[in-house]
Amino acid sequence: MKKELLQNVRERRPLIHSITNYVTVNDCANMLLACGTSPIMADDIGEAAQITAVCGGLNINIGTLNERTIPAMYAAGEQANALGHPVVLDPVGAGASALRTDTALGLLEKVRFAVIRGNISEIKTLADGSGTTKGVDADPLDVVTEENLDAACVFVKEFARKTGTVIAVTGAIDIVADEKTAYCITNGHPMMSSVTGTGCQLSALTAAFVTANPGEVLQAAAAAVCAMGICGEMAAERLGAQDGNATYRNYIIDAMYRLDGDTLERRAKYRVR
Amino acid sequence: MKKELLQNVRERRPLIHSITNYVTVNDCANMLLACGTSPIMADDIGEAAQITAVCGGLNINIGTLNERTIPAMYAAGEQANALGHPVVLDPVGAGASALRTDTALGLLEKVRFAVIRGNISEIKTLADGSGTTKGVDADPLDVVTEENLDAACVFVKEFARKTGTVIAVTGAIDIVADEKTAYCITNGHPMMSSVTGTGCQLSALTAAFVTANPGEVLQAAAAAVCAMGICGEMAAERLGAQDGNATYRNYIIDAMYRLDGDTLERRAKYRVR
Amino acid sequence: MKKELLQNVRERRPLIHSITNYVTVNDCANMLLACGTSPIMADDIGEAAQITAVCGGLNINIGTLNERTIPAMYAAGEQANALGHPVVLDPVGAGASALRTDTALGLLEKVRFAVIRGNISEIKTLADGSGTTKGVDADPLDVVTEENLDAACVFVKEFARKTGTVIAVTGAIDIVADEKTAYCITNGHPMMSSVTGTGCQLSALTAAFVTANPGEVLQAAAAAVCAMGICGEMAAERLGAQDGNATYRNYIIDAMYRLDGDTLERRAKYRVR
Repeated sequence: MKKELLQNVRERRPLIHSITNYVTVNDCANMLLACGTSPIMADDIGEAAQITAVCGGLNINIGTLNERTIPAMYAAGEQANALGHPVVLDPVGAGASALRTDTALGLLEKVRFAVIRGNISEIKTLADGSGTTKGVDADPLDVVTEENLDAACVFVKEFARKTGTVIAVTGAIDIVADEKTAYCITNGHPMMSSVTGTGCQLSALTAAFVTANPGEVLQAAAAAVCAMGICGEMAAERLGAQDGNATYRNYIIDAMYRLDGDTLERRAKYRVR
Repeated sequence: MKKELLQNVRERRPLIHSITNYVTVNDCANMLLACGTSPIMADDIGEAAQITAVCGGLNINIGTLNERTIPAMYAAGEQANALGHPVVLDPVGAGASALRTDTALGLLEKVRFAVIRGNISEIKTLADGSGTTKGVDADPLDVVTEENLDAACVFVKEFARKTGTVIAVTGAIDIVADEKTAYCITNGHPMMSSVTGTGCQLSALTAAFVTANPGEVLQAAAAAVCAMGICGEMAAERLGAQDGNATYRNYIIDAMYRLDGDTLERRAKYRVR
Repeated sequence: MKKELLQNVRERRPLIHSITNYVTVNDCANMLLACGTSPIMADDIGEAAQITAVCGGLNINIGTLNERTIPAMYAAGEQANALGHPVVLDPVGAGASALRTDTALGLLEKVRFAVIRGNISEIKTLADGSGTTKGVDADPLDVVTEENLDAACVFVKEFARKTGTVIAVTGAIDIVADEKTAYCITNGHPMMSSVTGTGCQLSALTAAFVTANPGEVLQAAAAAVCAMGICGEMAAERLGAQDGNATYRNYIIDAMYRLDGDTLERRAKYRVR
């Protein structure tokens, strides 16, 4: 993973507009600050498009979506498209309710996304129009393993082709792919799933990386996924015997604050297929 | 306190749906993860009942309630009742505004709760139809002490009888009771009141315990209260001279992440009346 | 800075009502607890004025404002005015969208504020009716430095005179002024800008200080700004080599939890102009 992909984030310091859920929004803001960008959150139809216009990139996360914020997602997405800003979609919980599935599919129809990042069940829901998401977690039956990795790459590339979007499926093994190339990434730590919003934070981070690296969407998204996983590893290395998921949450963000391009390059673990 | 009550939470890993305030929601989610369950938050009428249906238990917390989320509370509560899922009510600030009091009383009328958890002023408000809640804190005049403990147990049991619900009144001394039996619990630490949302976290935890222990609502709720108090004690033991309420917040959740059934059983401090 | 200004907060323990954004609300609540007050958040028009009435002071923060919460801001502000409670305004992002600028200006027209606290670009937006706020950060061109400090003090005093309000402009150098007197404060640490919501926390803290010190609005606001800066310094002194902005966030709140009046008096760095 090229170190410049992170260095550009820190040097260009883009403003990132997030319309995101109120569960993990604070961590998303601190993660965006940790990587060197500036976050702004605005979800009212009365200002969403205008805030998008003053930012460099947009992150739409459908967790805790509601009748008031859904129109703002469309307005901001369309504004970002009109201005050529990259947009990331995090379809949190798609498959768990019709509202989430329909909103994610509706956004896919109206807004051109640079990257869609979700767990395998959420992405399958978008690809197939229905899914078996367990709340906001992936269905164990869907999980990507070494055994089904080839088939999973084919599936992700095909969905990337169909949507014209980079797809990032994250889990124990992450797949970040466009229609031709898949990065299979094995950074990360199992304890990350014990912290609420590591996926949301990664989506925000992905928006930061693709905004700071125009024309390199696939590489930037893969770098964001590696960076998040490396931070999860470094944070786990710091944990003491009494530490749990709350301290771990802080250490992951701390690690991003300290992460430099050389460390990203050295610790990134991926294969290209 | 039987260690199985915690072990069942960790083994059965129920999904818990919370409709809760945006002040403490992140800590509630991390507390639910710390005890081994999976949290999902969804407060829009367009999906609340459907999300309830895919979960095992429901936690309704009326802090930062609003005209949009109140109908979702009713819809989710009624759905949970229809499916036989346990529902916990946290009447945050009942007595501080008519909207909160009326919503809590309205929910009590339409929804069958497994447990209601609040401070003494909030519970008195529900029992008497009016109260002297000071914001979101208990009125000092209401506080349960060794001196008034007998009378307080009578009051709580009577309210449990009237509502057909387990009542958890938490403070320096906690009372968890159904109409016949009261657990008087003295775990906990005074500094817990310097962390926003320890009560909210406990309500979420209570939902986790009662969901994972069907048919043992009273014991499960009492175990949740003991567990939270023990975590408050263990977290306080870790504090250094420069640590304050923010680090303490993290250490409480960390302690839950590490808590095992044996420690719960050994450290639980309660009398049964 | 007189130590009594902090001691009064800890002894009088006022209830503070905040209508604030969902990004940083949890940290605001924990900061209010850290300084010894009791926070309550309520943003629905159905209860906002009533909650204001049971509190001692009000903090209005327009981050993540929306069509539902804006009327609650007006209602709460007018109620606070009617009862003689101090009101603090944090015009987060004024200048970044018309909705934010118009709401801040509208509130200024209808509500009498004790203190307005913002960055220099937000305050210029309110003074001039338009501004160049970069998202929620100050425009680099606007930043207060030793070189332009005299002119900045004149500007802030004039805006204080025009509005009849204490104005707190915070940045590397803070200016807290009424029409006659400006405190130029140099406490703080550059890393504070890497934590989301240190400004929001300071506004909440300012509401606490002015509520606990009636008749001393200017001094109380200046003391709050010094206190926050000192906590930023003390937190930075604790940081280890692997710590980043998440741990720093916790340490700032921890420092406020431990801060005493003597330390405030000894470490406050300010000039009066």
